[in-house]
Amino acid sequence: METTVQLTGRLAPRENWSADRCSIRRALAVAGNTSALLILREAFYGTSRFDDFAARVGISEPVAAARLRDLVEHGLLARLPYREPGQRTRLGYRLTRKGAELLPVLVALMQWGDNWLAPGGPPVVLRHHGCGEPVRAELRCAAGHQPAAGELDLTAGPGASERGA
Amino acid sequence: METTVQLTGRLAPRENWSADRCSIRRALAVAGNTSALLILREAFYGTSRFDDFAARVGISEPVAAARLRDLVEHGLLARLPYREPGQRTRLGYRLTRKGAELLPVLVALMQWGDNWLAPGGPPVVLRHHGCGEPVRAELRCAAGHQPAAGELDLTAGPGASERGA
Repeated sequence: METTVQLTGRLAPRENWSADRCSIRRALAVAGNTSALLILREAFYGTSRFDDFAARVGISEPVAAARLRDLVEHGLLARLPYREPGQRTRLGYRLTRKGAELLPVLVALMQWGDNWLAPGGPPVVLRHHGCGEPVRAELRCAAGHQPAAGELDLTAGPGASERGA
Repeated sequence: METTVQLTGRLAPRENWSADRCSIRRALAVAGNTSALLILREAFYGTSRFDDFAARVGISEPVAAARLRDLVEHGLLARLPYREPGQRTRLGYRLTRKGAELLPVLVALMQWGDNWLAPGGPPVVLRHHGCGEPVRAELRCAAGHQPAAGELDLTAGPGASERGA
């Protein structure tokens, strides 16, 4: 099984360039924290209240407060006022479009965990509401093919710099 | 835009169950570390030698050694003896199938970073070697549809427990 992608053009060989603008690194700097990703999981599951995030992720209130503040600052969650009967107005949280676009990351992590770390089988299954079929995160090219790692070329993009990419 | 998935069956409402077997959490416990994920990025880019991992990820040798050891222990990388002319045999690293199956996670992180954190455009672009088209990580059901978050049902799977999932 070929597990590496093919470096092409000025990205070959690897020692010729520095991955100083790497989007994976930038994404991880914003959303690479375990508690933050589990808070986002809960937001996808419909959780919106502070206490529920802390309890359902299994983190202390100070940690939940810090992670929620970071997620709001980075624009992944937005604060949302709500009010229950007879109570004062409180702030809840909802996913922004920026946060919601992390769903493929969470689904890809879930299916990898299901495949390799869930001996009893997947505890939960995401299904397409319209047809009931299970949903996966998969790699596809714009022409609809599903390339394996060995069939991928890494090419310089418009954001590459002189010596980096 | 609907950003939450629909909890169904005994997973509704959310307070009825604990996500104690969550595959996302289990995946993050093994592969949720930024340095570890960037080491895996380098392994996909063809890096195999200890010194190159440390330099290309931009981490110290002790950190690289600790992360590589964890990745080998968890079965994501395997040690691979190699020998350069006139030198003693050394150990390199290659992705196992378990490690290689994390590629959709890295591609999903890359495209999110490209979309939200790369003002000059993507520094690198993955393309299908066969047709040259760019490759994305996308959500698809087994019938081939591409459901949005609001069209997803969360259902209990075979690994769900009495009160958890």
